[in-house]
Amino acid sequence: MTGDTKRIIADAVGEIEKNYEESEILMLRNESALPDRNTVIDILKGIRSVMFPGYFEGKLSAGAEPEYYIGSALTELYEKLYSQVVLALSYKKKRNVSKDKIKERAREICDSFFKRLPDVQRALLKDVEAGYNGDPAAKSPEEIICSYPGFLAIYVYRVAHELYEAGVPFIPRIMTEYAHGETGIDINSGAKIGEFFFIDHGTGVVIGETTVIGDNVKLYQGVTLGALSLKSGQKLAGKKRHPTVGDNVTIYANATILGGGTSIGEKTVVGGNTFITGSVDRNVKVSAKTPELEVSTGANKHDIEYYI
Amino acid sequence: MTGDTKRIIADAVGEIEKNYEESEILMLRNESALPDRNTVIDILKGIRSVMFPGYFEGKLSAGAEPEYYIGSALTELYEKLYSQVVLALSYKKKRNVSKDKIKERAREICDSFFKRLPDVQRALLKDVEAGYNGDPAAKSPEEIICSYPGFLAIYVYRVAHELYEAGVPFIPRIMTEYAHGETGIDINSGAKIGEFFFIDHGTGVVIGETTVIGDNVKLYQGVTLGALSLKSGQKLAGKKRHPTVGDNVTIYANATILGGGTSIGEKTVVGGNTFITGSVDRNVKVSAKTPELEVSTGANKHDIEYYI
Amino acid sequence: MTGDTKRIIADAVGEIEKNYEESEILMLRNESALPDRNTVIDILKGIRSVMFPGYFEGKLSAGAEPEYYIGSALTELYEKLYSQVVLALSYKKKRNVSKDKIKERAREICDSFFKRLPDVQRALLKDVEAGYNGDPAAKSPEEIICSYPGFLAIYVYRVAHELYEAGVPFIPRIMTEYAHGETGIDINSGAKIGEFFFIDHGTGVVIGETTVIGDNVKLYQGVTLGALSLKSGQKLAGKKRHPTVGDNVTIYANATILGGGTSIGEKTVVGGNTFITGSVDRNVKVSAKTPELEVSTGANKHDIEYYI
Repeated sequence: MTGDTKRIIADAVGEIEKNYEESEILMLRNESALPDRNTVIDILKGIRSVMFPGYFEGKLSAGAEPEYYIGSALTELYEKLYSQVVLALSYKKKRNVSKDKIKERAREICDSFFKRLPDVQRALLKDVEAGYNGDPAAKSPEEIICSYPGFLAIYVYRVAHELYEAGVPFIPRIMTEYAHGETGIDINSGAKIGEFFFIDHGTGVVIGETTVIGDNVKLYQGVTLGALSLKSGQKLAGKKRHPTVGDNVTIYANATILGGGTSIGEKTVVGGNTFITGSVDRNVKVSAKTPELEVSTGANKHDIEYYI
Repeated sequence: MTGDTKRIIADAVGEIEKNYEESEILMLRNESALPDRNTVIDILKGIRSVMFPGYFEGKLSAGAEPEYYIGSALTELYEKLYSQVVLALSYKKKRNVSKDKIKERAREICDSFFKRLPDVQRALLKDVEAGYNGDPAAKSPEEIICSYPGFLAIYVYRVAHELYEAGVPFIPRIMTEYAHGETGIDINSGAKIGEFFFIDHGTGVVIGETTVIGDNVKLYQGVTLGALSLKSGQKLAGKKRHPTVGDNVTIYANATILGGGTSIGEKTVVGGNTFITGSVDRNVKVSAKTPELEVSTGANKHDIEYYI
Repeated sequence: MTGDTKRIIADAVGEIEKNYEESEILMLRNESALPDRNTVIDILKGIRSVMFPGYFEGKLSAGAEPEYYIGSALTELYEKLYSQVVLALSYKKKRNVSKDKIKERAREICDSFFKRLPDVQRALLKDVEAGYNGDPAAKSPEEIICSYPGFLAIYVYRVAHELYEAGVPFIPRIMTEYAHGETGIDINSGAKIGEFFFIDHGTGVVIGETTVIGDNVKLYQGVTLGALSLKSGQKLAGKKRHPTVGDNVTIYANATILGGGTSIGEKTVVGGNTFITGSVDRNVKVSAKTPELEVSTGANKHDIEYYI
């Protein structure tokens, strides 16, 4: 490395240091640390191994006695989650809240979370059933668990939702963005989703924070359950901005349904590529009119096609 | 950890145990194990290193004598694949099929698979050529191999398709869902795809199980080759549900083409954002009519925009 | 392993060897090596740890003295990047360019790149601000940094763009395809993007190589800034093929804007699901007409729905 290069690096260090000092959000190293993304993902994988033994990570092989494994695995997962929840609460704590208060609250949150785990597992088994019954390309329910992205997204959502409801900062978002990255399915952990839920293919699905979804709902790739906004931004935080979807609704690929006041009645079928900003009755079918197409044969017509 | 917490965890273990016992699909630990996702992904990466030496994993560096490497790498990959195929066949075996029968069938499948590998490699080289010729942003064919998601998806599809054709359960799906996760491109391993195939950008592409695609076909991001259904679900399993696409067809971004009886004639160009549920002639261009737009300037009009 | 299997593997080795010899792009092992994808990703992660200490990888924990860490981290990153740039330039070098010339050029490129790093960091802090102000579901700016896919994509783009501008082959594409894989957001490193840029959700976004984007621009999932083409392929390489977007423009989900001559005037709002192939004035709102829907109640009508 030449002297010039050494000087360039030293200058860069100095300037980056200055950026740290001038930016509030880069000062976190001096006060507290954020939850660690890799640990949070480990927690998700660990819980999944307990809920679906033998399906992932090869941790519990055929024939093992699961109760010993589960007990020690859950104890370890509890401590991991507890430490991350303490970090998350500490980072966002108000000045007058003591460390002990934070730890007590983290303990309560983790206790409730672990109490709920068997219920979450039962809910997920229902989602598997919904997935298998809904997809002619599925060869077995086991395939849903071990390889369907829709199932991974729902698993992560159901776990993250418990922590969202408990008011934990950062961790629910880290969890659902992990699933989003793995699957292309972006379910905000604040959404409320009923039983027997299934998403097929899934790439491009967006389900917003204040969405409410009933039981037996099926979504396909590219469905957006999104918000309408007069003026966007932080002013809307906390308001109901996303649709309500009734029981037994099916929403086909690339449908876009928007608005906090928009509801889709139960048993209704929403066709693909529809664009819906108002409420739809129960027990109906809504389809987009098939758009007109132009067909031409001459080589000199319609030469312009877009490709990226 | 407090006594309360210990009790909560012990209770959760008990309930999770009960869930295992009450759910058929959670009992797999007692009988047999599923193929291991990580091993299956290792097999995909290993085959890729052999087919494209020096491009991935740094395993074969410039100047190495490849025949020694390839021989030992393929032998190791054979054993890995064989053990996974045995697991997959055992899991789905009928009661009266012996362990020896399973092993014999796994041996046959792996022998055929390894015989086909050089052909698969040649097919992939043609796909690289198609990719480079088709994309003005590509700087070299090498760039296609080392970084294009469309190429990763096609590579995984071509390998998985061999195992799908041999009737192997689980493994083809695990493979294509791995590619789906990495690329946003969801190609069912059952699809039949000709030579010189290219997918550009690719996020959101879905190619269904019974799709048939000819030679020299090019797809862009968001294209769906999907199914129409009277009533969905397992009743349709095995039927031709997805389109047939002729040779030399180009399908631009976000086109949706549906139905087992739908065919796109050779040399036809399908424009972006089209929605097609019936057959299209050979040698034509099909475009969506440009949708009408409303342009307004007043600040109080069209205030409502949707954003999620 | 049976004798038959051994013979099958030996035959496959022979054929694969022959494929190497007959394909120009598989001969690279004899002459030179390509940049290594894993090392390139490590460089991206390393720079991110320096720019946002404490947010990733747990490398810099709360309370550490950052200047020592940054100095040694940057020195290591410099050497890593330098060796990859040498590989990239060597692979594409003309016959008459000496090894020393390559090294000199790599040194120049890396020096300029490291000089620019503090500026890139400042630009990214502005992107964080834009993200937080633009999303009511964001709980804090820190959440944007540690978990938003749009921010990861912009971070990788801003780093890769520096190397694209310096004419480095392979590495910028490897970087942006890494981000594409992680996020579903495909930003070509050649695009020019102003300050305070934000992409929300992001899955399916495509921004082409010759796109120009002003300051304070916000995009949502599925937006394509793409090309129109008379005849596609390598003949178009280097030409302006993608749109120009003015300052303070917002583009809602799934809008498709195409063509090198297409410009969107400043302060304009482009509604969701629009399809735009011509220029749009400044300070207007463009919306797709809400498409007509058919609603039916009879069980025997509209039975056909597409689902994949």
